[in-house]
Amino acid sequence: MKKINIAIIGLGNIGTYLFKYLNKNKKILAKKNNCIPNVLYVSAKNKAKKRDLKISKKLWLKNYLEATKSKEIDLIVELIGGAEGPAKKLVFNALKNKKHVVTANKALIAKYGDKLAKIAEANKVNLEFEASVCGGVPVIRSLKEGLIANKINKVYGIFNGTSNYILSSMTNRNQNFREVLADAKKLGYAEANPSADLNGSDVSDKLKILSSLCFNSFINNNIHVEGIKNIDKDDINFASRLGYKIKLLGFSELLNNNIYQRVHPTLIKKSSYVGSIDGVLNAVIIDGDPVGRSIIQGEGAGPAATTSALVSDISSILRGNIKFPFSISSKERKKLKFKNISERNFSAYLRFEVLDKSGVLSNITKIFSLNKVSIKRLVQNPKKNKGISSIVIITHETKDRYLNKIIKLISNKAYIIKNPKLIRIDQN
Amino acid sequence: MKKINIAIIGLGNIGTYLFKYLNKNKKILAKKNNCIPNVLYVSAKNKAKKRDLKISKKLWLKNYLEATKSKEIDLIVELIGGAEGPAKKLVFNALKNKKHVVTANKALIAKYGDKLAKIAEANKVNLEFEASVCGGVPVIRSLKEGLIANKINKVYGIFNGTSNYILSSMTNRNQNFREVLADAKKLGYAEANPSADLNGSDVSDKLKILSSLCFNSFINNNIHVEGIKNIDKDDINFASRLGYKIKLLGFSELLNNNIYQRVHPTLIKKSSYVGSIDGVLNAVIIDGDPVGRSIIQGEGAGPAATTSALVSDISSILRGNIKFPFSISSKERKKLKFKNISERNFSAYLRFEVLDKSGVLSNITKIFSLNKVSIKRLVQNPKKNKGISSIVIITHETKDRYLNKIIKLISNKAYIIKNPKLIRIDQN
Repeated sequence: MKKINIAIIGLGNIGTYLFKYLNKNKKILAKKNNCIPNVLYVSAKNKAKKRDLKISKKLWLKNYLEATKSKEIDLIVELIGGAEGPAKKLVFNALKNKKHVVTANKALIAKYGDKLAKIAEANKVNLEFEASVCGGVPVIRSLKEGLIANKINKVYGIFNGTSNYILSSMTNRNQNFREVLADAKKLGYAEANPSADLNGSDVSDKLKILSSLCFNSFINNNIHVEGIKNIDKDDINFASRLGYKIKLLGFSELLNNNIYQRVHPTLIKKSSYVGSIDGVLNAVIIDGDPVGRSIIQGEGAGPAATTSALVSDISSILRGNIKFPFSISSKERKKLKFKNISERNFSAYLRFEVLDKSGVLSNITKIFSLNKVSIKRLVQNPKKNKGISSIVIITHETKDRYLNKIIKLISNKAYIIKNPKLIRIDQN
Repeated sequence: MKKINIAIIGLGNIGTYLFKYLNKNKKILAKKNNCIPNVLYVSAKNKAKKRDLKISKKLWLKNYLEATKSKEIDLIVELIGGAEGPAKKLVFNALKNKKHVVTANKALIAKYGDKLAKIAEANKVNLEFEASVCGGVPVIRSLKEGLIANKINKVYGIFNGTSNYILSSMTNRNQNFREVLADAKKLGYAEANPSADLNGSDVSDKLKILSSLCFNSFINNNIHVEGIKNIDKDDINFASRLGYKIKLLGFSELLNNNIYQRVHPTLIKKSSYVGSIDGVLNAVIIDGDPVGRSIIQGEGAGPAATTSALVSDISSILRGNIKFPFSISSKERKKLKFKNISERNFSAYLRFEVLDKSGVLSNITKIFSLNKVSIKRLVQNPKKNKGISSIVIITHETKDRYLNKIIKLISNKAYIIKNPKLIRIDQN
C-alpha cells in the first residue's frame, strides 16, 4: 500500500492530540484511504514540555524548517499558529518545496491564503485548512464538495465559541461581562488572553475565508468588525423583553452584485435557529441555489474537534484528491465588489442612558425624524430615584450610516450620561 | 481539459432539473473540477412527456441499456427509481461495464448496495448515492470525508420531510391525520401514493444506508419500523401538555457492541434541537469521537435539493476522486451484531382509552407493576358525559418487550375501547 510521510510541526494541545490520534488510528485510516499516514517527524518549540507523550528520539527534527527540505516528507501539518513568523516561513517554504500542507491557522490563511494557494496550485500540492474555520464543523469540505453545485448567496452564523459562551452565560445567569469572562477563563472556555475571541477578529478571519470560498473571490479585507466587550447586562435584558437574544454573528452576503462582510453583536429572535444555539457550539448557515438553506452545527474548537478536521484534510491528501485550495483555480477567482456596510439597510436597537428631565425624549425623537430613521418601538425605563432613564428604540430598516449619524449626534447632547449603543437586528 | 461523458437515464422532475442544471452550469463545474461534464445521452420512458425540454434528437438513446454498452459513456446517472426492474438492470450492467454510477435510488442501494459496491470496487469505478439519503443534506459526503476521522456511536434524526410536515401540521393546526394528509397532497408535500413516506419504509432505507457508512458494516435488514398512521390529534395534544412533540425519527446506535436500528414515532422534548425542526426539513445528528455532536440540516427532497446532491457526486467523479462506495473496502466491511430492540431499554408514552368505571385504573397499574414497568407520570382524562376516559402513562426506562407485553395484556381487557398506543420517548 502507498504511504504518505507526515511531519507535525507544533505540539501544543492540538498537535499532541493529533499525534496520539494518528498513532492509534493509522490502520483504519489506511484502509479508508488506501494509503498509510506515517508520522515521520515532529517538532516543537519546547521539547521539555512534551507532557505525557513518549516520542522516540529519532522523530524529532533539529530545526522545524528541515521538514520543508527533507526528501522523505510528503505532508506538513502546521500547528504553530500566527499569521507571521515561523508559521508563515514554514508554510511558504513547504509549498515552494512541493510538500502538501494541512493547517489550522486561520490568521495565516486569512492574510496569505491567496498567495499560498497560487504556490500550491503551481506545484500541484494540496493546501488544506478545514481546521481553521469552526473546528469540527466540516464547513469548508461541504462548500468545496458536498455543496459544490450551489451558487451561494449568503453565509452566516456563530463562528466563535468563547464569545457565544460568554453571551449565553450573561443571558442565563444575568451576570455582567467581567464576571462571566473570569468564570470562562477558569473553566477553560476563554484563553488567558481572549482578545481575538472577544473583539471579533477571530470571526473576521474565519468569515474572510468562508467568503472567498462561497463567492469564488479573492480574500478581501473590507469587513466591518465589532466585538462584544460593550454589551452589558442591561442590553441583554432589554433585548430579552423584546423577544431577542444577543449573539456575536458573522455575515457575508451577496446583494445586487456587492458583497458585504460584517461581524457584530446582533439581536436575533429567541425562537430562531441561531437564537437557540447556546454555549460553545458553532453553527454555519448557508443559503444556496439550488439547495436552499443548509445548516451545519458542531463543536468549533478544542483539540478533539480540531483533530477531526485535520484528519479529514490529511485523508483527502492520502486519497490523492488534489483540489484547488479555494475550490477554483487562482486564475479563475474573481475580484468582486466588496462594499462597506454604510449604505446597507438595517433595523437596529439603540439605547440611550439619559438624565430624566423633560424635553429629552422629544429631542431624541426629533433627531430620529430629521435623519430619516423611523421608530418601530420605543421603551423608556426610568431608574428609580436616580434621576436617570434608559431609552431603548427599535428602528425600521434604514441605512447604516443614518443609524451611526444619530448615535453621533445624540452622543454630544448634555443629557447623555453614557455612550449610546447601536446593535443591528437580524430578522431571520 | 479532460471530459467525462454522461448519460442521464430517467427524466422525471429530478432528471429534468439535473439536465437543465448541467447545461447551464457546465463551465463553472468544469473550472471547479478541472474536467468537463458533458451530457451525451438521455433516456426516458415516455419521450412525449418531455415538458418544456428542448433536447436534440441525437441525444436520445433508443434503449436505455445502450448507455451501459456505449464506449463513449463514462458516467451513468440513474433516475428511474425502484429496487428492481429497469433501475436494477441499468446499475448492475453499468458497473459491470466499468461505467461510473450516480444514483438517487435509496431502495436500490438499501437492497443491493453491498453487491453493487463489490462490482464497483473490482472495476475501479465510483458508485455514488448522496442523493439517496436526505436530498440536499450532504450527509454521506460528510461521513465519508469531512467526518472521516470519527468513530461514530450514533446517527439519528428526521429523514422524511413528508411525515415531518404532516406531524408538524397536526401539531400546529390541531387537525387530524386525514385532514392534514389531504392538504399535503394538494400542496405537493405528499405524493399521490405516500405510503412509503408514511409507513416508515423510506426512512428505513435511508437509515440502513447510513448505518453501514457509520459503522463500516454491511447493510443489515434487522430494523424495527413503524409509521405515523396511528398517531392521532389526542396523542399530539397529550404529548404537548407533557412538554413533548411527536416526530418520526430514525435511530441507529452502537451500544455494547450491538447495533440497534429503529424507525418509529418518538416523543421528543419541545425544547430539543430535533423538536424545533418543523415542516419538510431533514436533520441528521451524528455523535462521533473525537468530533462530538455534529448536526447537518437542510432540504431533504425535491428536484432542486436532489440536484445539489447529484452534482456533488458527479463532481467527485470529475475530479477523479475514486473512493470505496461505503467508505471502506468491501473486504474490510464487517458483519456486526444487529440486535432486535426487544431487549433495549426505553422510557415510553402509553395511552389507553377505557370505560370510565371503578377498578380500571387499579387494574392497569397492577399490570404495570406485575410486569416490572414503573410509572413516572400518569394522567387520567375523563371525556365529559361520555363514560370514557383516556389514561396516559409515561414510564421509567424498561425493556421494550415489557412495554409490548403490557400493551398486549391490556388490549384484551373488556374495559378497553380502542387499541392502546405505545410511543417511545427520546431523552435528548
